[in-house]
Amino acid sequence: MKRATHISELREIIALEKKRGRVIALVPTMGYLHRGHLSLVERAKKTGAFVVLSIFVNPLQFGPNEDYASYPRDLERDANLVEVAGVDVLFHPSSEEMYPRPMVTYVEVGQLDSVLCGAKRPGHFRGVATIVSKLFHIVQPDLAFFGQKDYQQYLVIRRMVSDLNLPIEICSVSIAREEDGLALSSRNVFLTLEQRLEAKILSQSLNEAEACLQAGERSARKIENQLREKISRHCQGIIDYVEVRDAGDLSEVTTIERPVLIALAVKFGSTRLIDNKVVEVDRHV
Amino acid sequence: MKRATHISELREIIALEKKRGRVIALVPTMGYLHRGHLSLVERAKKTGAFVVLSIFVNPLQFGPNEDYASYPRDLERDANLVEVAGVDVLFHPSSEEMYPRPMVTYVEVGQLDSVLCGAKRPGHFRGVATIVSKLFHIVQPDLAFFGQKDYQQYLVIRRMVSDLNLPIEICSVSIAREEDGLALSSRNVFLTLEQRLEAKILSQSLNEAEACLQAGERSARKIENQLREKISRHCQGIIDYVEVRDAGDLSEVTTIERPVLIALAVKFGSTRLIDNKVVEVDRHV
Repeated sequence: MKRATHISELREIIALEKKRGRVIALVPTMGYLHRGHLSLVERAKKTGAFVVLSIFVNPLQFGPNEDYASYPRDLERDANLVEVAGVDVLFHPSSEEMYPRPMVTYVEVGQLDSVLCGAKRPGHFRGVATIVSKLFHIVQPDLAFFGQKDYQQYLVIRRMVSDLNLPIEICSVSIAREEDGLALSSRNVFLTLEQRLEAKILSQSLNEAEACLQAGERSARKIENQLREKISRHCQGIIDYVEVRDAGDLSEVTTIERPVLIALAVKFGSTRLIDNKVVEVDRHV
Repeated sequence: MKRATHISELREIIALEKKRGRVIALVPTMGYLHRGHLSLVERAKKTGAFVVLSIFVNPLQFGPNEDYASYPRDLERDANLVEVAGVDVLFHPSSEEMYPRPMVTYVEVGQLDSVLCGAKRPGHFRGVATIVSKLFHIVQPDLAFFGQKDYQQYLVIRRMVSDLNLPIEICSVSIAREEDGLALSSRNVFLTLEQRLEAKILSQSLNEAEACLQAGERSARKIENQLREKISRHCQGIIDYVEVRDAGDLSEVTTIERPVLIALAVKFGSTRLIDNKVVEVDRHV
């Protein structure tokens, strides 16, 4: 596996592979990798592409009171993991390499960026769209892989690519979970044992909400209320949001008639976890 | 010369040339071409590149009370001109091709976009940065050519390319002028004979301002006031702005010690003309 810290190095490596006719796949990450990230790599490898995995904790997508400084980092552990997983190049630039001078240019994806996590983390998706745009221009991949745990991020990137005519196919990969259902996240490492045990309620309540929908419930508010009640009853976590929204454009839903995203964010102490489920409904129940 | 109206057609043509190892140059325009545009083509041709010229009157960069509807258009005249000039492909997409659904994604270049023309035309540079970003992703050129008449636009694009790591070299070409000094513009066609004669005062006053600077004047406000006075005295045009700013980042200047941009916009009836001059100064006059 090659490693690159400079944009110019990475570009040289990729240019050579492009000349050889290789398809280029990008897996952008913030590191501290888990099985979820590795499932993205696996999917990328399956396409036969030359796989670039980037690790960059992007300051631009963290708010002033968020966990940029404490976000977990372990580059050598990550490098071993991705080498075993068959990544072709690991790109791990410094902040100075990515932001050599103050940024004045931003990519904004309206509508999608102001609800759910966007409402709770102002500027977050602007930071995400901007860094992903930079990585896309640096790597110029044919394919890019994103996990569905960050479903809103996936929609934001997909829309950016479509609106700005980026010649890149965006592939989404389903959420990797622990045995008890907890969605894998680099932030899970911060949970106390008690929080870790309680946190399974998130996926459990999403499963219940899905069952409820499939049993015929069509009121988005009722689903949300049931979720909130269940989470509040079974854990100490503070609910940031619980919402049922259109799975295509995140617009508001009252009566559920199309595929919906059931999404939630819950804070366990200073650790904020997110999870979601996309549910398709039969219109004629 | 090939012509393409669909993005997919254009991409196919360009992919073939890239395979052949050709360098790709883009000359983005809004059409109704004049000698200024043709000088961009000439510069692009000189590099030996495969030259793509785009014609698209971009609704996104016009304000609600601006001249989008009346902006001059003559595609067949333009096609003849660029064929003679040696353009390899003319890309003239429809609005539906460029904006198949409502845009929610925008590229914003802060700081640079809120002064001069940006202050007078809110949203203009957001529209410019967004369409140029789209064209860059569609064409994926190695080189792109912009005229210095739109000096602020040139700076906005250059900064966008740098901040977002676009792998494109931005080349600027000096202003083409009529014999009496009037900067060429597609909008000149709207001037009445009297306005056309008066309009030469714009470049004349810029030349005088430069002479004044070179004679030792270092006060930006004095230069601006002299310009305003001269323009007001010699024509019926209404001054939109006259400003001396830093030529690198458009920041405010009081005492002129570095290269400055002297920029102006004047309205002759409903026709708004812009012109500018970049002046380097000797620090030790």
